[in-house]
Amino acid sequence: MKGVEYEYFDEDLMNRPKSSLLLEYNPVHKKIPVLVHNGKPIAESLVILEYIDEIWNDRPVILLPQDPRDRAIARFWAKFMDDKCAPALWRSCRREGIERENAFEEACALLNVLEAELKDKQKRFFGGDTIGFVDIAGNFIGYWIGVIQEVAGVRLLTPEKFPLLCKWCCEFQNFPIIKENLPPREQLFAFFKARFERKRKTFSPAA
Amino acid sequence: MKGVEYEYFDEDLMNRPKSSLLLEYNPVHKKIPVLVHNGKPIAESLVILEYIDEIWNDRPVILLPQDPRDRAIARFWAKFMDDKCAPALWRSCRREGIERENAFEEACALLNVLEAELKDKQKRFFGGDTIGFVDIAGNFIGYWIGVIQEVAGVRLLTPEKFPLLCKWCCEFQNFPIIKENLPPREQLFAFFKARFERKRKTFSPAA
Repeated sequence: MKGVEYEYFDEDLMNRPKSSLLLEYNPVHKKIPVLVHNGKPIAESLVILEYIDEIWNDRPVILLPQDPRDRAIARFWAKFMDDKCAPALWRSCRREGIERENAFEEACALLNVLEAELKDKQKRFFGGDTIGFVDIAGNFIGYWIGVIQEVAGVRLLTPEKFPLLCKWCCEFQNFPIIKENLPPREQLFAFFKARFERKRKTFSPAA
Repeated sequence: MKGVEYEYFDEDLMNRPKSSLLLEYNPVHKKIPVLVHNGKPIAESLVILEYIDEIWNDRPVILLPQDPRDRAIARFWAKFMDDKCAPALWRSCRREGIERENAFEEACALLNVLEAELKDKQKRFFGGDTIGFVDIAGNFIGYWIGVIQEVAGVRLLTPEKFPLLCKWCCEFQNFPIIKENLPPREQLFAFFKARFERKRKTFSPAA
């Protein structure tokens, strides 16, 4: 979106131990994503996004709004999606029994908050007329959870329950630069199917 | 620190239901702190801090560094303290049995990361020579947990295990503007003692 050239390295999440590159560049969390710029690493998705926005602040696309209050609101919602929604959605597909039911309830309540926010805003994206910081932070809801739900056989984020949020997911996935850069659906589906089956066989703890 | 005038409202955390002011100003999380500026609310501690830093950016004290990379590093550590350390420390004092033991182990591992960071940096504060964004984000470790540990009878953050971190806690608490604005230790102690005892009596879920 910023027009910044980059080289992309895949981390094979199915294999242990983790790559030496990941351990070197993100020794604290040992998690992707990591951005390496001028040889130095930045970790944590939202921290990376803000860094990109600040370093390449001369590009036509700016992710965070300019006004301090609008910036604070964007950070609030990005954090809400990242800290609250994504973990609850993940648990609703991965846990079993009562834990799954509780996570399902919790995720529904959280998504209702986002549904209400889209209704209040009456805009195409959380960022307004185009994709911004909040929409990118919400990519797990915008794309990934659809695939994960299907693998797990969970019906949570559906157009009947969340019409505006599902409309947003559709717009997000079809936004040209997003569409060109998301991993193909079949590839994601196969990845999660293999991962979920592996877990079922080995009883290893959830990620 | 910024020299901004403000009016402080206490939220009585022992009483339910929560105040109508809190429910109005932070309907999503229903949690403190909330900053109300020009009649409009901002919620979430770290979001509030960045907002204050951006709105009053003409004051002598600036909380976040100016360089984008230094800003990203500060955001990384603030998030680490807020999302990882504080919840694990809290659980290590509040849960019982094996859950407490696990939280204790986890909290030790996290605090070791902070201890190593202070050692590497060889500076007085996480922000460098003076208190910055990361130090303020770490106030739960810098002040609160000492009191909570004592109430719970837990010995986790001690000078034997974490000499540099404890030195930082001491410097943090004695930094003039911080010292003047922290709630008195006896008041905090009484608050947590009452809260912990109330929980023991009623078996209400932990906050």
